[in-house]
Amino acid sequence: MAKTFQGRIGVIGAGALGGFYGARLLRAGCDVHFLMRSDYDAVQRSGLKVLSYQGDFEVHPAVYATASDLGKCDMLLIGLKTIHNGDLAALLGPTVHQGTIVLTLQNGLGNEEQIAAVLEQKRCSREQIVGGVAFLCSNRTAPGVINHTDHGWIRIAEFCGAARERTRQIGATFEAAGISCEVHYSLSHIRWEKLVWNVPFNGLGVACEGTSTADILADEHLKACARALMEEVVAAAHCDGVGLPSNAPERMMKNTESMGEYRTSMQIDYENRHPLEVEAILGEPVRRALRAGCAVPRMQMLYALVRHLDQRNFAA
Amino acid sequence: MAKTFQGRIGVIGAGALGGFYGARLLRAGCDVHFLMRSDYDAVQRSGLKVLSYQGDFEVHPAVYATASDLGKCDMLLIGLKTIHNGDLAALLGPTVHQGTIVLTLQNGLGNEEQIAAVLEQKRCSREQIVGGVAFLCSNRTAPGVINHTDHGWIRIAEFCGAARERTRQIGATFEAAGISCEVHYSLSHIRWEKLVWNVPFNGLGVACEGTSTADILADEHLKACARALMEEVVAAAHCDGVGLPSNAPERMMKNTESMGEYRTSMQIDYENRHPLEVEAILGEPVRRALRAGCAVPRMQMLYALVRHLDQRNFAA
Repeated sequence: MAKTFQGRIGVIGAGALGGFYGARLLRAGCDVHFLMRSDYDAVQRSGLKVLSYQGDFEVHPAVYATASDLGKCDMLLIGLKTIHNGDLAALLGPTVHQGTIVLTLQNGLGNEEQIAAVLEQKRCSREQIVGGVAFLCSNRTAPGVINHTDHGWIRIAEFCGAARERTRQIGATFEAAGISCEVHYSLSHIRWEKLVWNVPFNGLGVACEGTSTADILADEHLKACARALMEEVVAAAHCDGVGLPSNAPERMMKNTESMGEYRTSMQIDYENRHPLEVEAILGEPVRRALRAGCAVPRMQMLYALVRHLDQRNFAA
Repeated sequence: MAKTFQGRIGVIGAGALGGFYGARLLRAGCDVHFLMRSDYDAVQRSGLKVLSYQGDFEVHPAVYATASDLGKCDMLLIGLKTIHNGDLAALLGPTVHQGTIVLTLQNGLGNEEQIAAVLEQKRCSREQIVGGVAFLCSNRTAPGVINHTDHGWIRIAEFCGAARERTRQIGATFEAAGISCEVHYSLSHIRWEKLVWNVPFNGLGVACEGTSTADILADEHLKACARALMEEVVAAAHCDGVGLPSNAPERMMKNTESMGEYRTSMQIDYENRHPLEVEAILGEPVRRALRAGCAVPRMQMLYALVRHLDQRNFAA
């Protein structure tokens, strides 16, 4: 078994995702430091509370209000909402050095490329990036309070090239914290595979505001539409060089049936009038499909609809 | 010039459309009789008022509360919302004889077939049906009051076969009432051609609740989506044997630009929580396209979305 990661870990974007994984790593003995904006005071005062179906716990971490205060880290865990990726340069500048591993567990496509651009400006390398996808149901219910309702496992992979010693070390570190972590050979593979589910259910959940996964499955036309969207994502992945199992849509539809009245993060954001991760989850996948010469008419239309609904929430 | 129609005309579905055309024919001297439900008392008492950009007028027609009271007619003008097509058998039974011309100006596809099925049950013939599409901006603003804001012209065609003497007679009758009426050789052609506009703008107006035609055109992604939907309708029409001009989408997009903040009837119905003509405008076109072997992924998805939103308005 690989040894665990020993350096200084910084969490950037310490919300429902970054806060949860950071707290779990901290509880397991890692040296974790949190950059916090809105929750800084609450966590400074009372710690970070995780109410979890696996057992509640509380940690009292070192918290910082700015990236400069956080300072250089040996690993950064990026849990930032992708809509804030414009802040990456300001957040990474004071916190990366040439040996920092930058692990992004953000949603969708395009995040690693944006991080790479920032790193290269800072005379660092895109080789420092590890990407991952999280299968986690959690939400921040109050400042410093995270409610963890289901799952939590992750899949990680190198952004450049195959898995290596450090990838396995990160995997072992999560495993030591009780987080099941699969080290995969292809980041594109795990990102596209997650989109097979995220595109239809996040997108349709917004386009049919208030429609849960169960509502979608109960409507034969919408269910067929979700399934057809899945097939488009599989085709787009294929054109992008990723061969997903042809039964992936069928398997995911079956899994979704067992989920009950699940509401996706994008849908919850929409209902709360928060900005949506529309570019990472819909826009960038559509652009990559089109660049690869793959027709994705349903994805394109869903992107147009969700993008419009999102922008309208923030129009003057 | 063909002579005008001389028989007894009954209007079934005397709302914003049937009421308007019936009132214009009556004012022009035709023998028009109105079947009315909710507006019966108001029209009985104070007549039918048309507030029109072409000049306001008022008529005091014979009104009837039931199809039996209306009785046999020589021509029926069907302006019923297509969602009430289930009532056709009860409405036509007492009002048609073997010489009655049944002129439907309803929206979308499938109405003539439903009327044909009813007529054949009554030992009448589908040959009695004439179909038409209306380019009319009007709405019923109060019982017995119709607001006519723009346009008004119609195109008609035989359901079975080419235009004949009676088709031209109906055309002349509308023309004599100041309604521009084109007699066309193909009912499929005029119905599909209207759908090239109706599918995207009615559908997207509901899927993006509150989005006018101008909002759609101002959003490059939604505009491209509307355009792509138009291309799908043209392709579906082609597979259904109707050759529309290949520049139809471009021409309609241009026309729409000149319309300003137009809101479609389906969108207004949705905002008022009225049931939508989703099967006539989206469902039946999709089914015909698929039967003809034409892939219409965007239309199918729009149908699924709008159908779901419509049904949810009327769920328990």
